[in-house]
Amino acid sequence: MTGSRGDRLAALVAERELDRLLVTDLVNVRYLTGFGGTNGACICGGEARLFFTDFRYTERAEAEVGGWEVITVKDDWLGGIAAHLAGRTGFEDQQMAVRTLGKLEKKLPDGVTLEGAGGTVERLRRVKDEAELAAIAASSELADEVWGWSLERGLAGRSELDVARAAEARMREHGAEPSFPAIVAAGPNGALPHAEPGERQIGRGELVVFDMGAKLDGYCSDGTRTFATGEPDGRGREVYEVVREAQEAALAAVRAGASAEALDAVARERIAAAGHGERFGHGLGHGVGLEVHEEPRVSPRSEDVLQAGEVVTVEPGIYLPGELGVRIEDLVVVTAEGHRNLSSLPKELQLVE
Amino acid sequence: MTGSRGDRLAALVAERELDRLLVTDLVNVRYLTGFGGTNGACICGGEARLFFTDFRYTERAEAEVGGWEVITVKDDWLGGIAAHLAGRTGFEDQQMAVRTLGKLEKKLPDGVTLEGAGGTVERLRRVKDEAELAAIAASSELADEVWGWSLERGLAGRSELDVARAAEARMREHGAEPSFPAIVAAGPNGALPHAEPGERQIGRGELVVFDMGAKLDGYCSDGTRTFATGEPDGRGREVYEVVREAQEAALAAVRAGASAEALDAVARERIAAAGHGERFGHGLGHGVGLEVHEEPRVSPRSEDVLQAGEVVTVEPGIYLPGELGVRIEDLVVVTAEGHRNLSSLPKELQLVE
Repeated sequence: MTGSRGDRLAALVAERELDRLLVTDLVNVRYLTGFGGTNGACICGGEARLFFTDFRYTERAEAEVGGWEVITVKDDWLGGIAAHLAGRTGFEDQQMAVRTLGKLEKKLPDGVTLEGAGGTVERLRRVKDEAELAAIAASSELADEVWGWSLERGLAGRSELDVARAAEARMREHGAEPSFPAIVAAGPNGALPHAEPGERQIGRGELVVFDMGAKLDGYCSDGTRTFATGEPDGRGREVYEVVREAQEAALAAVRAGASAEALDAVARERIAAAGHGERFGHGLGHGVGLEVHEEPRVSPRSEDVLQAGEVVTVEPGIYLPGELGVRIEDLVVVTAEGHRNLSSLPKELQLVE
Repeated sequence: MTGSRGDRLAALVAERELDRLLVTDLVNVRYLTGFGGTNGACICGGEARLFFTDFRYTERAEAEVGGWEVITVKDDWLGGIAAHLAGRTGFEDQQMAVRTLGKLEKKLPDGVTLEGAGGTVERLRRVKDEAELAAIAASSELADEVWGWSLERGLAGRSELDVARAAEARMREHGAEPSFPAIVAAGPNGALPHAEPGERQIGRGELVVFDMGAKLDGYCSDGTRTFATGEPDGRGREVYEVVREAQEAALAAVRAGASAEALDAVARERIAAAGHGERFGHGLGHGVGLEVHEEPRVSPRSEDVLQAGEVVTVEPGIYLPGELGVRIEDLVVVTAEGHRNLSSLPKELQLVE
């Protein structure tokens, strides 16, 4: 990867035959400039590298933003930005509200035209540099520590909510934030892929889906393990082993150049062969970075092809309504030869208190 | 207040000569239907009270949503919603992304036209009903408890960040969330109205601006006190008394029918008379409810008129760059005769450890 993020974006802007790109999505702004406050925008294209904020953040921006001219807009936010636009300008149509666009159009200098160009910065964000990989690895390591700590405290007899809230509090004690609200779903609740942890007490002999991630210095992790509070009842172990085998087969298929759709199929076919094809109702994975869900998508409908330096989850699951759920999720860096796994948790079914 | 929220919205929709309103802002969806998940939309107008979600939330919606027909959309989210639109349809242009509107337009049934109608639900949300007032009062009470707890632990010698994080953790232990990241800004940091708490140790004889709110059952509180770690140095006490007097004068002027601009002026004139007119760089207050900042705005440029049942902050401040800051903020319910104060903290300058 060569050149600054701004320079690489400027090349994409030129490739799209645009003169400027107006970036208003705050995550994209942070990615490009390093700015971590709550009001900012930037303009990139040609030699222009302009960052805009308001008086509250001028000082912070001067400290955080390198390689972009910091401009403090007074009063008229859109007007202050519009004055710096030029020629064919792309804007982030996936983010900008319809009303905001209407106001912006009224403030354009002569000769400036706007067109939707959302997704341009997201393309850059897919492949992580070394500093980003280190940040994601640190978040993942912290989450793994919190899993260990959580298991030491035991699961059976506690409520899902208590386990989830305690894990989140532990992350915060370590200076992180949860990258999303932790999922702790035991027994039949595990069959809901997006269950919210509730007051239900975790029983013995239940499978417990425990999905969480940490966010440290802006970068997220995401992982899942399914634990058992004693030898699981019924089909628990059988289903677990199917998911585990599917997950490991998919992991072995990760490499730069692999199509995301084919990767998804590796796990999906194994789950189908075991008779649970209808019970894996979500995609195999997704990119992770500044956001916990970002490009690429790894699903049956994805058109993405994996690139070295992308960070993706590999998370097949089987959900038997009213009975149980199993999901196993690792976070991996895509490499030319395969992958580097950022998750350090064991894969065999762990029986815990 | 008579009629359900849906019925009152339908009346506003008819008043705007629309057949339907498509509501896509999740906070507005929650207000109308009670739905607390992360994917939902609704259509209101005439007799139509339709709520849309996806399969992940069907069960939850059946439990939470009353008075609206629950429709689970499979696969094509926008298409599934568009099929139920009719005639002149308003949409929330302050929220909907430009790209989403473009996709929606392609899926419209014949004869349906779209026009921006953002802010309609926000108008309803201004005046709170009894259940909402009780929820906000409970959040405010919880925050007041956390202030008391924080002061018992002492301020001097701790970092701003430690005080803020501990307060947030305390809220979470009580089942709440912070309604925004707590602000703890001591000494010269207090002069930054939106300071982020940092590693700086709070000294003795400093003023400490402590601004926080809790969110319980979806409803926010917001309040600020400025404490002193021992008798303040320099102009601290003098400035404090000016803000206190301005705050109490503004409180006394709150009542249904008062213009927000005039209310702001009550505090602003007193601060100006004390020679600090340039040092009160924000509006006097704002509405609080499902969001910590919502309508009405109480500022020099506001055109809002206060109504009974609105909940607003009254929060003048004086910020002396490089030196100190003072802000005192109460949360009050507007009544016909005046106000009901939801904040229970004393107003005189408290000297704490």
